[in-house]
Amino acid sequence: MKTKNKIREAALIDRKTITVRFSEVDSMKVVWHGEYIRYFEDGRESFGKHYDGLKYIDIYDSGYMAPMVELNCQYKQSLTFGEEAIVETRYIPTSAAKIMFDYTIYRASDNAVVATGSSTQVFINGQTRELELNSPQFYLDWKQRWIK
Amino acid sequence: MKTKNKIREAALIDRKTITVRFSEVDSMKVVWHGEYIRYFEDGRESFGKHYDGLKYIDIYDSGYMAPMVELNCQYKQSLTFGEEAIVETRYIPTSAAKIMFDYTIYRASDNAVVATGSSTQVFINGQTRELELNSPQFYLDWKQRWIK
Amino acid sequence: MKTKNKIREAALIDRKTITVRFSEVDSMKVVWHGEYIRYFEDGRESFGKHYDGLKYIDIYDSGYMAPMVELNCQYKQSLTFGEEAIVETRYIPTSAAKIMFDYTIYRASDNAVVATGSSTQVFINGQTRELELNSPQFYLDWKQRWIK
Amino acid sequence: MKTKNKIREAALIDRKTITVRFSEVDSMKVVWHGEYIRYFEDGRESFGKHYDGLKYIDIYDSGYMAPMVELNCQYKQSLTFGEEAIVETRYIPTSAAKIMFDYTIYRASDNAVVATGSSTQVFINGQTRELELNSPQFYLDWKQRWIK
Repeated sequence: MKTKNKIREAALIDRKTITVRFSEVDSMKVVWHGEYIRYFEDGRESFGKHYDGLKYIDIYDSGYMAPMVELNCQYKQSLTFGEEAIVETRYIPTSAAKIMFDYTIYRASDNAVVATGSSTQVFINGQTRELELNSPQFYLDWKQRWIK
Repeated sequence: MKTKNKIREAALIDRKTITVRFSEVDSMKVVWHGEYIRYFEDGRESFGKHYDGLKYIDIYDSGYMAPMVELNCQYKQSLTFGEEAIVETRYIPTSAAKIMFDYTIYRASDNAVVATGSSTQVFINGQTRELELNSPQFYLDWKQRWIK
Repeated sequence: MKTKNKIREAALIDRKTITVRFSEVDSMKVVWHGEYIRYFEDGRESFGKHYDGLKYIDIYDSGYMAPMVELNCQYKQSLTFGEEAIVETRYIPTSAAKIMFDYTIYRASDNAVVATGSSTQVFINGQTRELELNSPQFYLDWKQRWIK
Repeated sequence: MKTKNKIREAALIDRKTITVRFSEVDSMKVVWHGEYIRYFEDGRESFGKHYDGLKYIDIYDSGYMAPMVELNCQYKQSLTFGEEAIVETRYIPTSAAKIMFDYTIYRASDNAVVATGSSTQVFINGQTRELELNSPQFYLDWKQRWIK
């Protein structure tokens, strides 16, 4: 039972194709490492559209914000200007009042893993900015809808 | 009379030294042209500290915002990573409900003009976001204090 | 004859749809004015793909670089997070050794003009970094191919 | 002996004061999480000036580049526009052909820890772009000079 659920949970994956901008490339002619944080954000936003209800605006409209508390990135290869990459964003199921994602960025031309990463967001009240210790109702609803 | 006033008005100038960051340099190993917009903003903010009362936060605390409506930049030379530059921000007097600046960016090492530019901001009400056709009182006070 | 040519020349227009990123929005909840410079660059790059041979990499591979020498932007309305916009990039024919574009950014939802702008680039030798006073051959070829 | 050396090694710390820019603040009116990667880079560069010989340009002039392979950031509190922060960059001694740093960002006004982080860079040959398995001579010299 548990195994089956886990497998189904692991299936919450979105893939978004991005194209490297000139302004994202540094003097080594490769994407500056800080730009990958933007790619991860592109991935999260694409994920939130795919599995409707977890976009920034959904969170905000529900009366919450979801600030980042932890971010990690491992750089394996480089991307250069004009190259296409695929940002694969995978939802990590958790019972905590957190949103956790893993990321893998692939070069589109040869499918090589360019970078991996992970992020953890918490919920704060949009008005008081205080930390929410329990998952907001909209998040429980979203989980119910997509993870079951 | 007029000439004298003009000269005195022209004296509202701030100079801020900046150092080019690695992340601001593009694959041609020079500052990406879009970064100069940030340098201008650094210049405005430094100006607003120097001539106290025109920082973003002062405008905001007075109940207004000052969005950009026009921006121009002429690129003369390039800056490379690690170089120091001086952002010279000059207030352009106007009776309109606008904030206008001219900018000159000099390379610190040889005083060469690297870029020039100008910007125009208007005032909007912080709540309604509607355009203010007349100069807000805080801006009139600021002019009173610093221009004549 | 000339009129007809002009009309045909004016037809070099590309339209690219972009989506506003969270990281591009400032504390006023609208796109920070400096980000439009990136949108213009997105427009130029899309144009260079559409009218093949004028992408950054084409210029570079031909032994040249095309640094920006003049940039202007007029802000009419604002864009907020998640909104789609269309960057319309129009080639401005010139006999000078320059690449000139006009830009109009439209909000996708209501077709309102959000911003307009223009840019001028010159050619420098990729090795010596010296200014090219005459149009490089690849640029003449590109014009030949696409304009008349 | 070893303990003493470790203590001395741990003493390679640089502190750089930064001021939050308007363009770095997001729609939540706090610094966008991706900007901290820039602050870490500011910290590394300041460190490389303080302990002369480890700036990007020193590495480059020695015939190498030092791309990022691992980056982590933990966000504890937020910074808002205009606030000053101190980026504390601490060198992590290693016998590997790597440059490793820990970071702590403090709010200047109350000394609260705003964020912590770490980074690992490797060396590649500036020409061939191949990974250097052994520490370049300039790096051994730098260690000799500053860590001993």
